[in-house]
Amino acid sequence: MNTFGKIFRLTTFGESHGTAIGGIIDGCPAGIELDVEEIQSELDRRKPGQSKIVTQRKESDTVQFLSGIFEGITTGVPIGFIIPNENQKSKDYSHIEEVFRPSHADFTYHQKYGNRDHRGGGRSSARETANWVVAGAVAKQIIKEIEINAYVSSVGDLFLEKPYQQLDFSKTESNILRCPDEETAAKMIEKIEKVRKAGDTIGGTITCVIKNVPVGLGEPIFDKLHARLGQAMLSINAVKGFEYGSGFCGARMQGSEHNDLFNEDGTTKTNLSGGIQGGISNGMDIYFRVAFKPVATLMQKQEALNSQGELVEMQGKGRHDPCVLPRAVPIVEALSAMVLLDFVLLNNSGKY
Amino acid sequence: MNTFGKIFRLTTFGESHGTAIGGIIDGCPAGIELDVEEIQSELDRRKPGQSKIVTQRKESDTVQFLSGIFEGITTGVPIGFIIPNENQKSKDYSHIEEVFRPSHADFTYHQKYGNRDHRGGGRSSARETANWVVAGAVAKQIIKEIEINAYVSSVGDLFLEKPYQQLDFSKTESNILRCPDEETAAKMIEKIEKVRKAGDTIGGTITCVIKNVPVGLGEPIFDKLHARLGQAMLSINAVKGFEYGSGFCGARMQGSEHNDLFNEDGTTKTNLSGGIQGGISNGMDIYFRVAFKPVATLMQKQEALNSQGELVEMQGKGRHDPCVLPRAVPIVEALSAMVLLDFVLLNNSGKY
Amino acid sequence: MNTFGKIFRLTTFGESHGTAIGGIIDGCPAGIELDVEEIQSELDRRKPGQSKIVTQRKESDTVQFLSGIFEGITTGVPIGFIIPNENQKSKDYSHIEEVFRPSHADFTYHQKYGNRDHRGGGRSSARETANWVVAGAVAKQIIKEIEINAYVSSVGDLFLEKPYQQLDFSKTESNILRCPDEETAAKMIEKIEKVRKAGDTIGGTITCVIKNVPVGLGEPIFDKLHARLGQAMLSINAVKGFEYGSGFCGARMQGSEHNDLFNEDGTTKTNLSGGIQGGISNGMDIYFRVAFKPVATLMQKQEALNSQGELVEMQGKGRHDPCVLPRAVPIVEALSAMVLLDFVLLNNSGKY
Amino acid sequence: MNTFGKIFRLTTFGESHGTAIGGIIDGCPAGIELDVEEIQSELDRRKPGQSKIVTQRKESDTVQFLSGIFEGITTGVPIGFIIPNENQKSKDYSHIEEVFRPSHADFTYHQKYGNRDHRGGGRSSARETANWVVAGAVAKQIIKEIEINAYVSSVGDLFLEKPYQQLDFSKTESNILRCPDEETAAKMIEKIEKVRKAGDTIGGTITCVIKNVPVGLGEPIFDKLHARLGQAMLSINAVKGFEYGSGFCGARMQGSEHNDLFNEDGTTKTNLSGGIQGGISNGMDIYFRVAFKPVATLMQKQEALNSQGELVEMQGKGRHDPCVLPRAVPIVEALSAMVLLDFVLLNNSGKY
Repeated sequence: MNTFGKIFRLTTFGESHGTAIGGIIDGCPAGIELDVEEIQSELDRRKPGQSKIVTQRKESDTVQFLSGIFEGITTGVPIGFIIPNENQKSKDYSHIEEVFRPSHADFTYHQKYGNRDHRGGGRSSARETANWVVAGAVAKQIIKEIEINAYVSSVGDLFLEKPYQQLDFSKTESNILRCPDEETAAKMIEKIEKVRKAGDTIGGTITCVIKNVPVGLGEPIFDKLHARLGQAMLSINAVKGFEYGSGFCGARMQGSEHNDLFNEDGTTKTNLSGGIQGGISNGMDIYFRVAFKPVATLMQKQEALNSQGELVEMQGKGRHDPCVLPRAVPIVEALSAMVLLDFVLLNNSGKY
Repeated sequence: MNTFGKIFRLTTFGESHGTAIGGIIDGCPAGIELDVEEIQSELDRRKPGQSKIVTQRKESDTVQFLSGIFEGITTGVPIGFIIPNENQKSKDYSHIEEVFRPSHADFTYHQKYGNRDHRGGGRSSARETANWVVAGAVAKQIIKEIEINAYVSSVGDLFLEKPYQQLDFSKTESNILRCPDEETAAKMIEKIEKVRKAGDTIGGTITCVIKNVPVGLGEPIFDKLHARLGQAMLSINAVKGFEYGSGFCGARMQGSEHNDLFNEDGTTKTNLSGGIQGGISNGMDIYFRVAFKPVATLMQKQEALNSQGELVEMQGKGRHDPCVLPRAVPIVEALSAMVLLDFVLLNNSGKY
Repeated sequence: MNTFGKIFRLTTFGESHGTAIGGIIDGCPAGIELDVEEIQSELDRRKPGQSKIVTQRKESDTVQFLSGIFEGITTGVPIGFIIPNENQKSKDYSHIEEVFRPSHADFTYHQKYGNRDHRGGGRSSARETANWVVAGAVAKQIIKEIEINAYVSSVGDLFLEKPYQQLDFSKTESNILRCPDEETAAKMIEKIEKVRKAGDTIGGTITCVIKNVPVGLGEPIFDKLHARLGQAMLSINAVKGFEYGSGFCGARMQGSEHNDLFNEDGTTKTNLSGGIQGGISNGMDIYFRVAFKPVATLMQKQEALNSQGELVEMQGKGRHDPCVLPRAVPIVEALSAMVLLDFVLLNNSGKY
Repeated sequence: MNTFGKIFRLTTFGESHGTAIGGIIDGCPAGIELDVEEIQSELDRRKPGQSKIVTQRKESDTVQFLSGIFEGITTGVPIGFIIPNENQKSKDYSHIEEVFRPSHADFTYHQKYGNRDHRGGGRSSARETANWVVAGAVAKQIIKEIEINAYVSSVGDLFLEKPYQQLDFSKTESNILRCPDEETAAKMIEKIEKVRKAGDTIGGTITCVIKNVPVGLGEPIFDKLHARLGQAMLSINAVKGFEYGSGFCGARMQGSEHNDLFNEDGTTKTNLSGGIQGGISNGMDIYFRVAFKPVATLMQKQEALNSQGELVEMQGKGRHDPCVLPRAVPIVEALSAMVLLDFVLLNNSGKY
């Protein structure tokens, strides 16, 4: 249940307040040259404390590879890695030891397991996603020809109106929000700042565009390419929805306007299909959108439930994100890379 | 790749124009009394030819159980079943033997497998979903206490505006659309009729509400309850999006309005979480929405690509659905039942 | 739990006295030309009633393919098949409805599932192995260059003393026992005849030799090639042991005599390793030996336990095998083919 | 491929000469009190340098748990652990950098992966088994009522003749060989000493006896209890064979002597079945025997192949075991515990 993928498989462990988190990447092909610095820089994109609009918690999040790489080359055996936990202010959590925060996993974990590591949410902490970024960064280096670009496409009611074709993805990293349109980014950052000062949080969406996908990735029935991408995205903390191609808008259309007519070379004139037909990539751009709810932990007072069944007032203390979007961008990319590589390897297996 | 589930597992086979489709249900507990007529009546909800707003193809879709049930009781070994194919008008498809229909799986299958069974789409046909309905109907009979109610909540731009709490699900089956609000249903049916007469098709959404879910279903990381539900729904032909609880609307909100405050008994005052927190059910109603694009096969002329790379004019012939929604309602319910039962059994495994 | 394999996967169902048994082959590469008659002829090797030394039950065991093959070529989607049950003399089993036969699965099934289909052993019947022979025959046609030859190497205390290198496998099918040495076969057949007349049964061993195996099949840790072969063989009804290469004899040796010294071309001068080193094939012949206990159902009186906890006298009635070995030869080959093909496909997946 | 188990799952990584080896235990029930010292003491039974008849390499093999345990109790989330590598004399291996040792995995790894970590065999090193001992020690503490006792039952041609019923397992740890019969142990130790002094190695067998197994563990078809035990044992380095109950001897018997007649309470008068019938435990003692070939690395000169295809003379240098049996005893027990617990949890899942 803590394993992701069929052939390129990541198995993970770790709580935000234990010694370390980490994982094992199994099924990584042998002979791949890995740039460990590039992997670390992907982790740096996700780490806390990068800017004023994310949590001020400071953690270096340094990945240590323990196996599977010899002289910079993958050997074909499992790649074990850990990311030591630092700067754990468990004290920050002592006030919630006996309290279930609203809209958190506190209550459900307690009910499911009969216990709960209240320090930072235990396994429900988004810290787990650092493991995914490591594995995704490995995957990215294997399928280098595929370009994966995620970016923040809305914050609350502020939407990036431009279609992705008009965006310059090289600018995504140029602002702290990771929205490639500077003007919109500025407004969104301002909005988050305002929300943060009020001790509140805000939701939004991330769009991901994947180019140069080979035709034929995905399986017809239960492992449709978009179903696996959807499951991956819905695994990210705070995600409430997933749509690809025309998505929910497509549900309002008629077939005569929705169908993507062909060009003679097999490409299509429009791409409402979002690069996937019948669960299998058709070579056009894949694009999808992921909805994130606002972070549940507020820096303002709200009512919570304690383990005695009493309603008590509480206020978030630690150092939390007013908006998860900027740090979620590399996570969306990482999971996308893992899914795509898995299907590439699966396709290879059938080449007899 | 043709297997669904971890413990309660369905493996399927079959093309729409072969001898039969079918499947194997593995991991079904022993000693369960099965009402085979009830299973058949679920299949009847999905079958073609039920009404004027779905395909006029006539198929009885009769399930035959071959194993795993002895004197009406499950024995604990695999339940094998087949649904013979009837009324196959392969001739209806001869005109597309060499043609890739726009927005179909024709092109991607051909590219992936180097061949294609053009008769009815082969494995990409929605006929496969009949297998799912069988397995889902079995699952429903095991988790009888959980109520699963899906219904059509929009057709094109027509939306059922009432929140689900105001609906009487016992009326869902009272009209051919499977929308529990008669007035809205009438408008939607009229719309579909109009679209059908124009040789066109139309999209829409299905909402599913699940009540009496035990607390604790779902796994923390990659098998979050909503991620598995999402993957399941995204496996249905023509689905473009999935959202649960507040969904994409939640992405526009702030934490102070989105958080579900507790009652003293552990229930919550609101339920924007959609019954799932941290990937685990919290006992509140689960609800989600699924977006279906319009059917790609039109009864009007459109341009297609042939295998010589030429653009040719074509027109759908067979007997196709102008709108998949009415027949998709039992499919959504079936997959939901399978996912929930799987997690129930998984939870049992850990009770040591 | 009723699925075998990682990429080339067989999932099965069926009891000996239901309508049919059958299975689904998933992960079969597309574009493979299948000779269905050859598959049937493998089934004929396993079927009952072939000769005087096996059960006299008459069943045609005809496989019907329901999907996945179009115009004689695999399409890449699941191959569903059934083998209808015929000639079911359920009456033959009425005398054991309330009786647990010694050394059968009757007692353990009853305890595990709280019920038991007493007719022919239900799922514990060796009839299931017909499904394996179908899938194995498909696999054989894909890895045609690999030669898999199993044969009876001992019956009771009669051993085929010749090393396999001195045998002519083309003669295995020339006698009803499937032992390629005519003289030894004659003695063994005589022995079985004698045992059969006494209403008794007898055990023995099957040896399997696999030639032309590519170097590199098998995985280092839990999926060692010999571990997967061993698991497969131990899945066959009545099997009590498995050894490969030097096997249990190797445990009596010293390293200086056991090590296989190299030739300059990477082959080895001896092959006590049995073609596998560190779990991975080295290109030399793979050979292993499988131990079968005597069939538990006797045609002479013995004591059994009834469900009231009383010891009662019983005598087998149906039509049982005095020795399973001749019919087990194609089963051993079928499972070997499935394991090898699975590893071939797995190896392909890593070729990036 | 580096994952073992269905519900109680161990995934591992690590080479003998990297930073650390380790693993992730997934599916461990919540709320289990774990005695970490007991886990360490199981590891100590396996560690090198314990006595004169095993390798003189000194490693403390200290396990560090990184997650999944909170205040001594399992939390239900994955248990991550590492065992740092120490005392790595890579220099000991420099002489084999370009040499394939006979009957080692050197050649097959090189062919499979196109590279090889020559230092200590990389992933093919038996050091991996330390991970298994950790997971097995966790499993043992969960199924405390089941008694698992392995012991050395032969060394070369010296056999422990007594049946297991006459042995006192509390004496297994009283000698360095782990054979519960002192007299036989002394002879075996003497034999190993002699072999060691000659720079040679020797094979042998380990027998394992499992008592108090609940009735009903194991699955009917591909996950028969003995098939999973067999696969597990065949995963241990140097294992060439596995037999349970009557094993290869049973293949020489007739049914009338082999059948285990019942007592009125459902136990059996004899137990040639080895506690398993039809793949499912019947409550009687499970016992099986595992064959280990002699270690391939000799401290005397032998011929090897270098990567230029030349035959060269070589002599083992490092510090190797003259006989793996004493250190393999806890490994056999650990894998047994993991298999049994996995089936216990699987059985729980079906209790609806």
